[in-house]
Amino acid sequence: MDRATLVNRRWLMAARPDGNVKPSDFTLDAAPLPPLADGAILVATDYLSVSPVMRHYMLRAAAGEPALEVGQVMRGRGVGTVVDSRHPGFAPGDIVHGPLGWQTHAVLAPTPKTLLFKVRQRVAPISTAIGVLGMTGYSAWFGFHDIGRPKAGETVVVSGAAGGVGSVVGPLAKIAGCRVIGIAGGPEKCRLLTERLRYDAAIDYRNEDVDARLAEVCPGGIDIYFDNVGGRILDTCLGRIARKGRVVMCGRISEYLDGPLPGLANYHLVGSRNARMEGFFVYDYADRFAEAEARMAASVASGELPYVEDRLDGFERMPEALAGLYDGTNLGKRIVAVSERAMAGA
Amino acid sequence: MDRATLVNRRWLMAARPDGNVKPSDFTLDAAPLPPLADGAILVATDYLSVSPVMRHYMLRAAAGEPALEVGQVMRGRGVGTVVDSRHPGFAPGDIVHGPLGWQTHAVLAPTPKTLLFKVRQRVAPISTAIGVLGMTGYSAWFGFHDIGRPKAGETVVVSGAAGGVGSVVGPLAKIAGCRVIGIAGGPEKCRLLTERLRYDAAIDYRNEDVDARLAEVCPGGIDIYFDNVGGRILDTCLGRIARKGRVVMCGRISEYLDGPLPGLANYHLVGSRNARMEGFFVYDYADRFAEAEARMAASVASGELPYVEDRLDGFERMPEALAGLYDGTNLGKRIVAVSERAMAGA
Repeated sequence: MDRATLVNRRWLMAARPDGNVKPSDFTLDAAPLPPLADGAILVATDYLSVSPVMRHYMLRAAAGEPALEVGQVMRGRGVGTVVDSRHPGFAPGDIVHGPLGWQTHAVLAPTPKTLLFKVRQRVAPISTAIGVLGMTGYSAWFGFHDIGRPKAGETVVVSGAAGGVGSVVGPLAKIAGCRVIGIAGGPEKCRLLTERLRYDAAIDYRNEDVDARLAEVCPGGIDIYFDNVGGRILDTCLGRIARKGRVVMCGRISEYLDGPLPGLANYHLVGSRNARMEGFFVYDYADRFAEAEARMAASVASGELPYVEDRLDGFERMPEALAGLYDGTNLGKRIVAVSERAMAGA
Repeated sequence: MDRATLVNRRWLMAARPDGNVKPSDFTLDAAPLPPLADGAILVATDYLSVSPVMRHYMLRAAAGEPALEVGQVMRGRGVGTVVDSRHPGFAPGDIVHGPLGWQTHAVLAPTPKTLLFKVRQRVAPISTAIGVLGMTGYSAWFGFHDIGRPKAGETVVVSGAAGGVGSVVGPLAKIAGCRVIGIAGGPEKCRLLTERLRYDAAIDYRNEDVDARLAEVCPGGIDIYFDNVGGRILDTCLGRIARKGRVVMCGRISEYLDGPLPGLANYHLVGSRNARMEGFFVYDYADRFAEAEARMAASVASGELPYVEDRLDGFERMPEALAGLYDGTNLGKRIVAVSERAMAGA
């Protein structure tokens, strides 16, 4: 291909956010692509993921990576098509998901540490490689199974339940034979939970008293609380943890914007109820991603694992897509279609 | 034996404590012993344990038992000698440890659920059956090994390190090949830690800045924090938890007196450092007590597991012995010698 004519469009961080991200925190530029060195591949981005941790990347070190600097390409994962390769393991036409960044083209030199993976499943659109069958789904899978350790018949509560990870945990809990209750903001999200995502009940934290509703729907307490939000809802759910309950510490979207919150009041129940609160890093499970993908792909194929994508079309909409997460406008896993074929729904 | 002449002296709860326990919260009485029914045994108390959770028993339900009521015998464990038995598994002369209560004689009907055990080890005085080779030691053993999951070379921090459980965790950490730092109140306790209990370093929380000292002695962070105190020291140690660190939630003596504390500020590090905070209930390990006793008895015999008993003589001193725990006057595991032979150091 004629790389000289290829212009790579990129979103750079222009300023560290204060409050929610806003358009002036980002700059769109265009840059020529570097020549492809031995061992490198060129990927044309099809879809990009947005996720709550991205604002965190803009402010401080996270997940083993330093904070982004002003002028750097925004960090993030995407799914794309290999268009040129000087790496023996990749050929043009391969579909990969990996750390493409917010750009229309990425040059990467895959090593076992690059966290770039080929998409092998054939049961769902390639966009799911940044959703239910990618890091989002793996976070749900390993958080729920390895940290939560569910037993059939247990009661599971999920916050941020209509978000990327939460929308996967609900169906996984049903597959495991659990009762599952989702917490989300607003009636539309709550309907999504019970009508499409297999949740047994939903609590609208914007319009309901979460603690009173938990008392009603979890009379025996919460066996597993899968936390995607942190802050006050974490404290409320911890207050209703069952003996030997588990709190899966996955995300803290409420804290990303609210800043320092009052301390956790109910932490002593971890001791007195012999409970467990535990965090995890999804990349620590990299040698088991293939297993998780295969099992979830089978459940997607059987219909047991429904998934909901919230797709925006157009690379220029990346900042808007991200800001919407903190405003709670997404319904399901939010992705942005970048390539022509992605916008056509490939 | 002539039970008619036997008078059982008992300490009853006279009032629920407000602040530290005080003499007027207890009444000493004397009562005749009930006749020995089939399946029951009569035990003459040798030593009684005092432990921080006892004030909690006086106020509210704990560890699967309801709160004590005014007029009831104080709850607690002791070691004693079987003096009469109508149970086929026990004979006069057997030494047992179990829920004797604060009384000079106990009539018990042992079942597998009674949590009454024969003392089988021959390496240490029978008093250790309420210390290093009893529930106190088992709490240290299972908390450290099963919840803490130590690896050789790791850094362990223990609060309440000169107390009953803490004084056992230090040597267990050394046996496991760890570095271990103890936090205790006052120079005398700190000397005890490093001079007799194998701690590598000690921090005097009454006279030193705990966080600054932790920075100094744990430059790579804390891999295991064994918490016996809760509250502010828990928060400070959590602030220095290493990636994948473990917080063993064992006791909360600081909270028993201070009442509701500010919430835990550093809880979010459980998520971001992929750490784990976990509580446990020592009786859940009952089927492994014999294993723990055998392994710790071997370490006591070899000298690898030193232990320190803080013995008060005389049944009438029970309230004083308990109050002293909250004032921090104990050095090591506090026990009270009740029988003549115990006071003689049997």
